[in-house]
Amino acid sequence: MKSDLDALMQARNLDALLVLGSAEHNPPMYYLTGGGHVSGATLIKKRGETPVLFCNDMERDEAAKSGLPTRSMSLYPFSELMKEAGGNQSLANALGTKKMLADLGVTKGRVGIYGHVELGSAFAALTQLQRIAPDLELVGEHGMDSVFIRAMETKEEAEVERIRRMGQITTEVVRLTAEFLTSCEVREDEVLLNEKGEPLKLGEVKDKIRLWVAERGAELPEGFIFAIGHDAGVPHSAGNPEDLMRLGQTIVYDIYPAEAGGGYFYDFTRTWSLGYATPEAEELYGQVKEIFDKLWENFDLNVSFKQYQRMTCEYFESKGHKSQLNFGSPTEGYVHSLGHGVGLNIHERPFSGLMTGDDHRLSPGVVVTSEPGLYYPERGMGFRIEDTFWVRPDGRMEMLADYPYDFVLPMKKWKKK
Amino acid sequence: MKSDLDALMQARNLDALLVLGSAEHNPPMYYLTGGGHVSGATLIKKRGETPVLFCNDMERDEAAKSGLPTRSMSLYPFSELMKEAGGNQSLANALGTKKMLADLGVTKGRVGIYGHVELGSAFAALTQLQRIAPDLELVGEHGMDSVFIRAMETKEEAEVERIRRMGQITTEVVRLTAEFLTSCEVREDEVLLNEKGEPLKLGEVKDKIRLWVAERGAELPEGFIFAIGHDAGVPHSAGNPEDLMRLGQTIVYDIYPAEAGGGYFYDFTRTWSLGYATPEAEELYGQVKEIFDKLWENFDLNVSFKQYQRMTCEYFESKGHKSQLNFGSPTEGYVHSLGHGVGLNIHERPFSGLMTGDDHRLSPGVVVTSEPGLYYPERGMGFRIEDTFWVRPDGRMEMLADYPYDFVLPMKKWKKK
Repeated sequence: MKSDLDALMQARNLDALLVLGSAEHNPPMYYLTGGGHVSGATLIKKRGETPVLFCNDMERDEAAKSGLPTRSMSLYPFSELMKEAGGNQSLANALGTKKMLADLGVTKGRVGIYGHVELGSAFAALTQLQRIAPDLELVGEHGMDSVFIRAMETKEEAEVERIRRMGQITTEVVRLTAEFLTSCEVREDEVLLNEKGEPLKLGEVKDKIRLWVAERGAELPEGFIFAIGHDAGVPHSAGNPEDLMRLGQTIVYDIYPAEAGGGYFYDFTRTWSLGYATPEAEELYGQVKEIFDKLWENFDLNVSFKQYQRMTCEYFESKGHKSQLNFGSPTEGYVHSLGHGVGLNIHERPFSGLMTGDDHRLSPGVVVTSEPGLYYPERGMGFRIEDTFWVRPDGRMEMLADYPYDFVLPMKKWKKK
Repeated sequence: MKSDLDALMQARNLDALLVLGSAEHNPPMYYLTGGGHVSGATLIKKRGETPVLFCNDMERDEAAKSGLPTRSMSLYPFSELMKEAGGNQSLANALGTKKMLADLGVTKGRVGIYGHVELGSAFAALTQLQRIAPDLELVGEHGMDSVFIRAMETKEEAEVERIRRMGQITTEVVRLTAEFLTSCEVREDEVLLNEKGEPLKLGEVKDKIRLWVAERGAELPEGFIFAIGHDAGVPHSAGNPEDLMRLGQTIVYDIYPAEAGGGYFYDFTRTWSLGYATPEAEELYGQVKEIFDKLWENFDLNVSFKQYQRMTCEYFESKGHKSQLNFGSPTEGYVHSLGHGVGLNIHERPFSGLMTGDDHRLSPGVVVTSEPGLYYPERGMGFRIEDTFWVRPDGRMEMLADYPYDFVLPMKKWKKK
């Protein structure tokens, strides 16, 4: 939680945090400012103190909405910094940052560096800053273990409510997608037809999904996956817009919308086969569903997340599939990890990889996904089921959105002969 | 243009470019890969050679769509890198990157660093990389003067066509917005009413705009500005969703959609006053329009952009307003610069600021905005007109989308008494 930041800074001996970039689509900045239309800011948080937001005069009203104390960048006129820097922009930026830090009393000690930004400029400026401020130690924290990711790991109830709301939007959109697909006419060769009687392309379905998400005021900042057949068998294939929608092929539909402006995400996957499924697909889907249910029954408070990844690998290997447990990095079978935290980042702590530490646990307050899957691109099929759940402060596990797990979706205007 | 990259590298004595991050919403990576669903990649381009894309196995098909040679990250197993790094993730990342560079023969020389990424991880890994590969000189190029921004400055015709297409979408959405607003019923106190007969909030209009953009397959990755009254007088205020829409107040509508997935932007602004305008607002709008037209008549091939910023400042100061020419960083009057290049970045070269170099010119192939404005938040009003134009290879200036400049939009169901 946000209130953990000072203790985390203390534990890592960080005297200040320096966060760069815009307020939107920039999780650490969003976390402290609440987002808003602040396009380029510098935030400095000293340990034990309220963060201070340095912003452009043009964005002063937006910056003030953060509720944080703000200071105008015009106190550090770029023309004077450029003169002082002999025309070197990176040095000018470094001089400005050094002055901002000094004005808050940060002239020595360890300063953590954060923000989703253009790397070239930032790396150049930080290298200069380190040179002109040798008493400061600039600390790059690994993004998946930074004080922010640690603080964000445990959600406040208000954050969970926002994630839950995104879950409602997500499942509404998924329901509309299922209704649309199952209402289509079907051609002799099992290709779906669109409203104009033409073969329905996957890209058309994706366009509708984007629209349904936008209608609900959400965004798809990281895209989404809607893939059929071979592409469903490649976990991160987004799907080929030119593919035709057909009966009897597996469709992996993995959708992770976020609040507009770079807010909280939800993460969700279903696998469908329209009209009917092949016996092989039915069997593999049944295995994914079986381990999904078994995991749900077994998730327990404060157990390390990777134990469930191990359980999933063991289950799939017992069924004859490859997994990361004994096959390195397979490209067929169960090829990824079980889940991850979800919040302002689509992937955040805790993680479930077999090599993650024991401190990645189902602790009270985490919001995580469970997403076992099987992938056989050469056989033209793939499967994944994913829900997002909250480990409540009372230790109960709560799915944040409900949606049926039907694999075969019956077509309203088609029957198997 | 992309074909300029090798010459730019040569001029800066860069032996290789190292680009980090996802393919979407990451201009340098998008520029070389064409976008697509590649969530975490490393791209290395040696001078004079085709870039090589290192990617996750799960994203191999998406990566292949770039048309670039790809290599699997599984050749650099993270478990082994972690062992070698004694469990230090940043060092493990640095070791992996060092090996990738070495496998392409980059073991010494100057390597430019790029990508829109989480800064903490990258800074930590690059600091480690610099330490373990002392024969490499890692060069952070300032984002607004990097080889990429230089290459991107001159557009190919195919890029201009994509920007033009976004201009069509932009003006369609603006037209729908005007039609919607002017069709509203108006209450006795000059507040607009929505379809339900309730006072129309600015946030409702913004929701419709988002939807109209999404319906056309575009995104608003940087948000947009739709602000009325006081907020219209603050150039980067996004507008307060709770404000009521009223007659006779200035509305600044600045919208900059991009192709879905982090592609090309368009940038456009109009200022409206619904039903009628105050004489003061009419006069100020007239000034903005006058200098806008004068600029358009005067834009000339290969002239430095800042000359037009100077012309704009002089014009506004002659009318009694403050500007950056003689008033530092004013918060009233003409408070910003005239324009900027537009492409995969909403703001890119050339720039028009008074302090930019003479090499920021209206050269053949640039696509730039012209956006003079006046801002008086204390008087509750602001004004800006902006169009995007292309300096054609034949030297002609071409607006990339047409839209009327009417300031007062007559209401269909209301007449001034």
